[in-house]
Amino acid sequence: MNQTRKITLIGTGLMGLPMSRNLMAAGHDLTVWNRRAHRAAPLVKEGAKTADTVARSIASAQVVISMLSDGFATGELLSDPDVQRALTAGMVWVDMSSAKPEHARAHSTLLAGLGVTHLDAPVSGGTKGAEAGNLAIMVGGEAAIVEDMRFVFEAMGRPVHVGPSGSGMLCKLANQAIVAVTISAVAEATLLAEKGGADPVALRAALKGGFADSVVLQQHGERMSEGNFTPGGLSKFQLKDLDNTLAEAASLGLALPTTQEVRNRFAHFCEEMGGADLDHSGLYLELKKRNDLT
Amino acid sequence: MNQTRKITLIGTGLMGLPMSRNLMAAGHDLTVWNRRAHRAAPLVKEGAKTADTVARSIASAQVVISMLSDGFATGELLSDPDVQRALTAGMVWVDMSSAKPEHARAHSTLLAGLGVTHLDAPVSGGTKGAEAGNLAIMVGGEAAIVEDMRFVFEAMGRPVHVGPSGSGMLCKLANQAIVAVTISAVAEATLLAEKGGADPVALRAALKGGFADSVVLQQHGERMSEGNFTPGGLSKFQLKDLDNTLAEAASLGLALPTTQEVRNRFAHFCEEMGGADLDHSGLYLELKKRNDLT
Repeated sequence: MNQTRKITLIGTGLMGLPMSRNLMAAGHDLTVWNRRAHRAAPLVKEGAKTADTVARSIASAQVVISMLSDGFATGELLSDPDVQRALTAGMVWVDMSSAKPEHARAHSTLLAGLGVTHLDAPVSGGTKGAEAGNLAIMVGGEAAIVEDMRFVFEAMGRPVHVGPSGSGMLCKLANQAIVAVTISAVAEATLLAEKGGADPVALRAALKGGFADSVVLQQHGERMSEGNFTPGGLSKFQLKDLDNTLAEAASLGLALPTTQEVRNRFAHFCEEMGGADLDHSGLYLELKKRNDLT
Repeated sequence: MNQTRKITLIGTGLMGLPMSRNLMAAGHDLTVWNRRAHRAAPLVKEGAKTADTVARSIASAQVVISMLSDGFATGELLSDPDVQRALTAGMVWVDMSSAKPEHARAHSTLLAGLGVTHLDAPVSGGTKGAEAGNLAIMVGGEAAIVEDMRFVFEAMGRPVHVGPSGSGMLCKLANQAIVAVTISAVAEATLLAEKGGADPVALRAALKGGFADSVVLQQHGERMSEGNFTPGGLSKFQLKDLDNTLAEAASLGLALPTTQEVRNRFAHFCEEMGGADLDHSGLYLELKKRNDLT
């Protein structure tokens, strides 16, 4: 069975561009579209097709992948009458943007009315992961469709089916909460070590492989002790993610006290300290300021 | 140069026992001592020497290793006049117990007066790490002495010199704070996923290798979704560690807000919910109770 598909990828930005290249390399028949055509141009040079409108770009696709800034951008696209007319029963729409679970569920319902299956499949791993084709892909939706799409996902990374529609977005929010709280843990450990006269570089080396070890300890911890807060992951996006996480938790009746505490500190860092456009490891600066250190 | 040493190890408990075996296997001339003699007996059968008093056990040692319950136990030993008389100039005393940095610094000063060098070298990795000889060993003290002791440490794990006297204990406290806060992050992510209808087993699989991944996510996360809180690492020890971490931070004039928040929750779990003797991943139960879930 031929597992390649006729795919249209919408949103050829920092992530969508390398994802497109990996889809082509895996043998898929790729059409790309970007609101600003010059952003899709390099891919067209490399063999991708394109079209003059987004509706035409998806007209004959088997699979549409959207990789946009958030769920509102995906929703705007899906509510375009031309796009709706271009969709035909049996298509699969995979939203790989990071959005709210409620967006994913609403889009799934809307598309089901047009005979189109929806999967929410946000990713973790950043541009490096996108380029290397080893993104973590958290997929929500029907198991059989996820399985059917495995070969498509595997061109871009490691898909894991995490539950019904919306679950992919939910797991992405859980992912972001873990990252933020771990950054705070590493910031406090680093400051304690430094003020107490220990070497934070040696601390990270000593903890490597043990119970306290994590990607955040090694990578964000290094940024903290080197004072390098050039992004990387922007603090304002981290704050947005945490707000989305807590809103989703609240809609489920859940309080998440540690996530809430760290969210408040990111808000302080972004809104009162000018940290919005610094790397999220910059929470270390917020901790220092709180302790009257600079 | 022969790198083996005449070593006395005091405290052949759950950790000291396998550490002793690894020291013997590396060719060191080992004497062991335990307040309750039957706890040292298996090692004597395997070839270790012993003595009828702790002072006699250390009389001709080049290196004394203490592996006791805390800094108070080590301090009690060091203030015993018979022990002090048995110590001779040039000996190295390595305290591998987990203690407060201030204890380590006081012991270092006391021993220096007797011509004995002190290193604080607490470990992370638990009984499994002790048995496998791959403990993370955080060493505070003089660099030259740490280097001279490398072969001794390497029989038990991976030594890293983290700074002057007390730094090993400080890094151990930083280690414990990271573990506790990461447990809280994973508890909140797990509960969010579960209540939102996603599969926490799939969540952990999806996050593996990404920015949110950690030993705590994989191991403690599994305990949470399986409801297995048989220790493992006891919650009451986690609380004691966090109290020590925050006391040390306070003595340096530092507030560590996320560690403080998580410490208060462990106190609630241990003191109000009967969780003291459950595994520290049981903070998940505290989070559920806080959300009126059981």
